[in-house]
Amino acid sequence: MRVEAYLSAAGLEGVSLQGRVAVVVDVLRCTSSVVEALAAGATAVYPTDDTEDALRLASSIGREDTLLCGERRGLKIAGFDLGNSPSEFTPETVGGKRLVMSTTNGTRALNAAAGADRVLVASLLNLSASVEAARDAEALALVCAGRAGRFALEDALCAGTILRRVLEGRADEEHDLDDAARVLSRLHEIISLDVDALMDTEAGRALQAIDLGGDVADCARVDTHDLVAELEDSAVRVAHGS
Amino acid sequence: MRVEAYLSAAGLEGVSLQGRVAVVVDVLRCTSSVVEALAAGATAVYPTDDTEDALRLASSIGREDTLLCGERRGLKIAGFDLGNSPSEFTPETVGGKRLVMSTTNGTRALNAAAGADRVLVASLLNLSASVEAARDAEALALVCAGRAGRFALEDALCAGTILRRVLEGRADEEHDLDDAARVLSRLHEIISLDVDALMDTEAGRALQAIDLGGDVADCARVDTHDLVAELEDSAVRVAHGS
Repeated sequence: MRVEAYLSAAGLEGVSLQGRVAVVVDVLRCTSSVVEALAAGATAVYPTDDTEDALRLASSIGREDTLLCGERRGLKIAGFDLGNSPSEFTPETVGGKRLVMSTTNGTRALNAAAGADRVLVASLLNLSASVEAARDAEALALVCAGRAGRFALEDALCAGTILRRVLEGRADEEHDLDDAARVLSRLHEIISLDVDALMDTEAGRALQAIDLGGDVADCARVDTHDLVAELEDSAVRVAHGS
Repeated sequence: MRVEAYLSAAGLEGVSLQGRVAVVVDVLRCTSSVVEALAAGATAVYPTDDTEDALRLASSIGREDTLLCGERRGLKIAGFDLGNSPSEFTPETVGGKRLVMSTTNGTRALNAAAGADRVLVASLLNLSASVEAARDAEALALVCAGRAGRFALEDALCAGTILRRVLEGRADEEHDLDDAARVLSRLHEIISLDVDALMDTEAGRALQAIDLGGDVADCARVDTHDLVAELEDSAVRVAHGS
């Protein structure tokens, strides 16, 4: 298996992921919120690159049964229905609804990966289901959303764990890892993936500074949802699972 | 000390490094070649973003005593005097000359870092001298050139070694490392920095594939030059040392 990794979405510029299964990770908080929303019964989540795209898309698919959600500088976008905290995505709020989402890093990373053969939307919340869905890939592209073109440790830790578990499941094969994938696959040897580690990342500290430390704890939960989330035809939907 | 790290030059887009001492690393091969050229007696190396800039600058500073050098896809740019192999930069060839250089990643990273208070040009060839020059920084920005906006292991290993040695020299202080710097400072625990590791990187393999494996070995030599290279007023010159 060929494995390449992008430590921030900036590395995807001008790159086609055709022929790869992409696994997109934005632990704090976009992909965690998307998974939480789908688990709560949202029918589809449309990632958009900016606020204007979100408003335009919501108008075109119909404002009825559509919620606008997302953040800038961590806070809910003015005039939007929801922010980007997993705890906002409850069955009461999002059940049966379509969501149009715009976040600073995660939704852009999802759209940048859209050229891949499959685009899996992964987080700690659906870790094992994502590993299972990626297990048979012939070529894997791990996409860490990062922060504004830069490295984000929590994304690297999550993507690294997914990669390690996929590799463990195929230990009898030869694999061809690029430089970034090699580091991801061994990152757990120097930094553990747990709630304390997440709190101590740049994104974790930034969230605590705006009183959203609870979100970090919510995003640190592992395997709360047995759910594969997949981007197809411009929207993330449940691919299978419960 | 505040320490931030950029795992590729893409992360520098829109970022000012004012107030920081920047350490720019492109082990394979730009910063190694710049250091080798200065050690061989070149008076200044002007990094340029593209071929056109290089030609324009060479015209404006005067073609006499100026050599054009650089690569695209690893190979010498057509019509240029030299490529990007350290072994080309001998006293006979570059002594007393100004060089105008354009490489795919390194020269762009140097120019992207130009807003820093100081811009140190580091490689394994001048590792200890670069550590010494960075030691008293109040804020340090480690800039790995990377490859086309992506991670390059050899740059991370070199930058990580510089960071670790700077931190060891200031073990009695508290330091504030960003996510990327935290990983760099511990990278040696999972991957050793030696010629075999360099040969096994993506860039190392790409150079071997075009019969430039000797360059990888040349760039893997540690402390062959006690020389601090610094970018100032658009050119890299020897800051002090021998």
